[in-house]
Amino acid sequence: MQYEKLKKQIAFIIEIDKLKHIFRQTFLMDASRRENDAEHSWHLAVMAILLSEYAEDEHLDVLRVVKMVLIHDIVEIDAGDTYCYDEAGAKDKAEREQKAADRLFNMLPSEQAEEFRILWEEFEACATPEARFAASLDRFQPLLHNYETKGQSWKEHRITGSQVLERNKPIQNGAPLLWQYTEELIADAIDKGYLKR
Amino acid sequence: MQYEKLKKQIAFIIEIDKLKHIFRQTFLMDASRRENDAEHSWHLAVMAILLSEYAEDEHLDVLRVVKMVLIHDIVEIDAGDTYCYDEAGAKDKAEREQKAADRLFNMLPSEQAEEFRILWEEFEACATPEARFAASLDRFQPLLHNYETKGQSWKEHRITGSQVLERNKPIQNGAPLLWQYTEELIADAIDKGYLKR
Repeated sequence: MQYEKLKKQIAFIIEIDKLKHIFRQTFLMDASRRENDAEHSWHLAVMAILLSEYAEDEHLDVLRVVKMVLIHDIVEIDAGDTYCYDEAGAKDKAEREQKAADRLFNMLPSEQAEEFRILWEEFEACATPEARFAASLDRFQPLLHNYETKGQSWKEHRITGSQVLERNKPIQNGAPLLWQYTEELIADAIDKGYLKR
Repeated sequence: MQYEKLKKQIAFIIEIDKLKHIFRQTFLMDASRRENDAEHSWHLAVMAILLSEYAEDEHLDVLRVVKMVLIHDIVEIDAGDTYCYDEAGAKDKAEREQKAADRLFNMLPSEQAEEFRILWEEFEACATPEARFAASLDRFQPLLHNYETKGQSWKEHRITGSQVLERNKPIQNGAPLLWQYTEELIADAIDKGYLKR
C-alpha cells in the first residue's frame, strides 16, 4: 500500500524533471544563456530563506513560502512560460495553467495533490502574507538578473522604466524594504540606459 | 543598518547564480544534456517535501532538510563537482570544500553565515536524522536519473552494480522504504544491462 504510494510520488518526481527544459526570458547573471524554471525556483527558495525578515509579516511560515516558490512554475511544464509583458499570452494563461495543474498535481497521492493545488492557488491569488512575499521574490529575482546583465532581456523586448515599475509594484506589499531597494535599482537602470525612459 | 544587511544578502544571491554553471555527471531524464547543481538542488527540495514520511524519523524538521539540500552544493561554485566514483578527486575534496565554504558563506551577515555553515557541516557529517534523510535523497535522485536514461552516465564511466550498491547503502539509514525501492531498481538495472555486473 505504502509502496504503491511511493511509486506514484516517484512518477511525479520523474515528470517534473521537464521543468529543467522550460526556459524563461531572464538571462543568467553572466548573460551567457537564458534561465530555466528549475534554476529560477531554486534561486527563489534560497532567497525566501535569506530574506524572510523583510516580509510584511516577519513571523510568516517560511516553509510554506519555500514550498510555494518550489512548485509555483510546475504548471509551465504543460502551459509553457508566458513572458510577463506579453499581453496576448496573458489572455488564456489562467485557463492553460488550470488544465496543467489538473493533470500534473493529480499524479500525486490525493492528500499531496490537494496540498500542492492549494499552495499553487494561494500563490496565484496573492491571498496571504506568505503568497505576497513569494510573489515579491518572483518579481525581484528576474529584475536583479536584468540589472546584472545590463538589461539584456529588457532591451530585447524594448521594455520601459514605467512598465517595470508597474509590474513590480506588488513587491511593496510583500516586502516593503525590498521595494525601496527595487525602486533605486530601477531608477539606476534608467540612468544607465538598461531601461528605456 | 538593515539596508546594509540587505545589500550583503543580495551580493550573496548574485554570487550563487554561478551554481547554474556547475555541471554534474548526471544526465537529465531525457538524456539530452547534463544537469547542473541548481537544478539538482531544486529537485531534491521538492523530493524532501514529498517523501519526508519515509525518513527514519517521520517527525523530522522538513524545513531543515529543505534548507540543507538547497545549499549543500553551493561550495562547488569554488570547489567544482567531484564525481562520486572519482577516488583521486575525493582525496582533497574536503579541503577544497572547506575553503569554498569559508569564502562563500562569509559573504552573508554573520548570523546567516553561521546558520548556513552549520547546516552544511551537519549535512556533510550525516549526524542527524535530517542530514541522513537529505543524504539519502542526494544519492537517490541521480540514481533515478541514471535508471531513466538507461544508465547513460554509469555506462560512460563503466560503473558496476556493486559500486552502485555500495555507494547508495546509506539510503538504508536515512529512508528505509526508499532503500527497498533502490535495491529493486539496481537489480533491474543490472538485468537490463544499464549497469555492469
